[in-house]
Amino acid sequence: MTTLQDCRALDAQDPLAPLRAHFSLPEGVIYLDGNSLGVLPRATAARVADVVTREWGQDLIKSWNSAGWVSMPQRLGNQLAPLIGAGTNEVVCTDSTSINLYKVLSAALSIAREDSPARRRVVSERSNFPTDLYIAEGLCKERGLELVLVEPEDIGAALTDDVAVLMLTHVNYRTGAMHDMAAITAAAHAAGILCVWDLAHSAGAVPVDLRGADADFSIGCGYKYLNGGPGAPAFVWVNPRHANRFWQPLSGWFGHAAPFQFTPDYQPAAGITRYLCGTQPMISLSALQCGLDVFDAAQPLGGMAALRTKSLALSDLFIRLVEERCDGFGLGLATPRAHAQRGSQVCLTRDEGAGIDGQGSGAYAIVQALIARNVIGDFRKGDGGTGRHKDILRFGFTPLYVGFEDVWNAVEHLRQVLAGAEWQRPEFNQQHAVT
Amino acid sequence: MTTLQDCRALDAQDPLAPLRAHFSLPEGVIYLDGNSLGVLPRATAARVADVVTREWGQDLIKSWNSAGWVSMPQRLGNQLAPLIGAGTNEVVCTDSTSINLYKVLSAALSIAREDSPARRRVVSERSNFPTDLYIAEGLCKERGLELVLVEPEDIGAALTDDVAVLMLTHVNYRTGAMHDMAAITAAAHAAGILCVWDLAHSAGAVPVDLRGADADFSIGCGYKYLNGGPGAPAFVWVNPRHANRFWQPLSGWFGHAAPFQFTPDYQPAAGITRYLCGTQPMISLSALQCGLDVFDAAQPLGGMAALRTKSLALSDLFIRLVEERCDGFGLGLATPRAHAQRGSQVCLTRDEGAGIDGQGSGAYAIVQALIARNVIGDFRKGDGGTGRHKDILRFGFTPLYVGFEDVWNAVEHLRQVLAGAEWQRPEFNQQHAVT
Repeated sequence: MTTLQDCRALDAQDPLAPLRAHFSLPEGVIYLDGNSLGVLPRATAARVADVVTREWGQDLIKSWNSAGWVSMPQRLGNQLAPLIGAGTNEVVCTDSTSINLYKVLSAALSIAREDSPARRRVVSERSNFPTDLYIAEGLCKERGLELVLVEPEDIGAALTDDVAVLMLTHVNYRTGAMHDMAAITAAAHAAGILCVWDLAHSAGAVPVDLRGADADFSIGCGYKYLNGGPGAPAFVWVNPRHANRFWQPLSGWFGHAAPFQFTPDYQPAAGITRYLCGTQPMISLSALQCGLDVFDAAQPLGGMAALRTKSLALSDLFIRLVEERCDGFGLGLATPRAHAQRGSQVCLTRDEGAGIDGQGSGAYAIVQALIARNVIGDFRKGDGGTGRHKDILRFGFTPLYVGFEDVWNAVEHLRQVLAGAEWQRPEFNQQHAVT
Repeated sequence: MTTLQDCRALDAQDPLAPLRAHFSLPEGVIYLDGNSLGVLPRATAARVADVVTREWGQDLIKSWNSAGWVSMPQRLGNQLAPLIGAGTNEVVCTDSTSINLYKVLSAALSIAREDSPARRRVVSERSNFPTDLYIAEGLCKERGLELVLVEPEDIGAALTDDVAVLMLTHVNYRTGAMHDMAAITAAAHAAGILCVWDLAHSAGAVPVDLRGADADFSIGCGYKYLNGGPGAPAFVWVNPRHANRFWQPLSGWFGHAAPFQFTPDYQPAAGITRYLCGTQPMISLSALQCGLDVFDAAQPLGGMAALRTKSLALSDLFIRLVEERCDGFGLGLATPRAHAQRGSQVCLTRDEGAGIDGQGSGAYAIVQALIARNVIGDFRKGDGGTGRHKDILRFGFTPLYVGFEDVWNAVEHLRQVLAGAEWQRPEFNQQHAVT
């Protein structure tokens, strides 16, 4: 049996432990929701204040040049690139994940179908994050194409010669299951299909090698593991072999070859800059930069490889402790045990009918009871027993700021919530809008 | 002749003078570039700091509910609505102007062409702000339609029965000329054409009555006269008669009827909410809110009507002083004298060949020399004498924080720059990227 002392010993030996000091964590909170909204880096408040009061307030319009505002999306893109296996000048930080997906999926479809007009399908995973599916649905409708949704085990069989683009999220938001990006991309390419990868739950969480996997297009989120703040700008990567072939449809002036020439006709900038659209948000981008700076600080401590080692150690520990200490309460494991198939979160299930008076799973109430104890995870609803998706208790393990004793304490709170039937209190069973 | 004392008397009588205290203006700067980047409201730094350190840093994911993050775009939209003659729940603040234009132009084209598929043209003004033209060009190319660009005097004749959408910017960014929104919209509607209005240089600058003009779609900018900060979120308005008819193509989860149900298929929210796409940027939206708050403070002082009166008085004064005191230096007036045709900026021209050794107009160097004297306007390049567009010296007059003595001082600096040939110094004649 694992003990609290074992966990403390792991913290004492953790070479990444100093990184926690880069964050401003609320006192007494065990935050296991960095997969939804990352925490505040300690440097962000001062940086944002400087952008607001000096760059904007004092220097005003001059800051487009003097503070380097005009190239912020590219500079942050270059800072982010090593985390996702991208090269220099291949990434820009801009807009939202959904908007960036629209850009790359548009471009991918244009390229794939120029070569092979008979390819009329986009394949994705049925449990992909919904906004990805909504964007794909809209684009397919607009272009008279078909969106085909499959279960993960059926992806291989779905790669037929009428498919233009395979669009997947690398790590599943509900289960934490991670795809083999290189193998799937290779299979897709062998079938003449382009691959779009959403790295929302990967960038900053697991090592990603877009170049190594020879991926085609990729987008991802700035406010989860990159700690860029609520609604932070997202990012876009395009394989250089595609970058100059098409321009994405959101052809605004920041993607123009010479935006300050104010010419009436659009000439796309070379490379990834054409994936910018309108004027870029400087306060938000500056906050995101502080999130990326922490990864620079992690570099001498081993970088993404060391972060991955710790992340797996944390999630392994969580799984082990739940199984050792919360047995008999109807919990199951939705996240794969195999390291190669696991992102940086662990998702527990609870059986339908395990809730109060046999209603529902009780998973929502358990998460609420944990939140009341300052253990922050989140709940994702299942399909109510009608299909393969159970209700989910979701816990993200961000190795930048989560320690091994945190994991012990989280499981101990979970045990107490379950053993004392605390989750059955009425206040934890009133559902309202949650993210 | 107008005197400095006259200007001081105007300031002393100005009922809006107290509004200047709502802004944090750099010491000694006369800022006439609020049409490019508005200045920093005094409340913004503290509000942004609170969002960063408390709402994000302390309350983390809970703030989506507890701080009302989830409804920020709609709340700010309702706060903005009175400035543009929109009703409640008809506006959202989100994304960039360019992206919002893509949304509304897409929807407008879908609606117009569903009713009349033979309408295959989008008409706009050749000197519309380029990003608007780039977005329209991209959409037309994507849908096999034609973008027709005309001079302002030819708009009426261009409203033929093959036109689907007329897309105009209300106040021209180069000249400050303002269209008659009601008359043009009526003419377009009489020809069966839908109208999209860009309010980038109107919202917060001149009274706008979208409902009164019976406009169809509108978008605008948050970082100019609304003082939302560099790259602030923009806004979208859709006439309620169109809002539920189509969904715009950027169909992300924040525009879904039930985003937190995580259903795989897209069901657009009712009304304007469907014009949202991805996760919204809370730090930027909070900064924009502080800009909008100043307009709330202006309400008891007479609101937009009083601001308009002062704006016209400021720009009238500027024109008069330039003509009285800077005669003989080759300056001309690009902005209409008629109040009904003028926005909140005055644009001066300078003849081609008036620059050093007869090269260019010298307008760029004059603007640089003014900036060195802390009089901030900006330069917009003409067509080099090949067509109708001369080089422009652009001066925005934001009645919230610009006073009449500021106008006197700005013109006096301009006179000195011209009279002393200060603008001919080499350092003012080296061009680099400017916004």
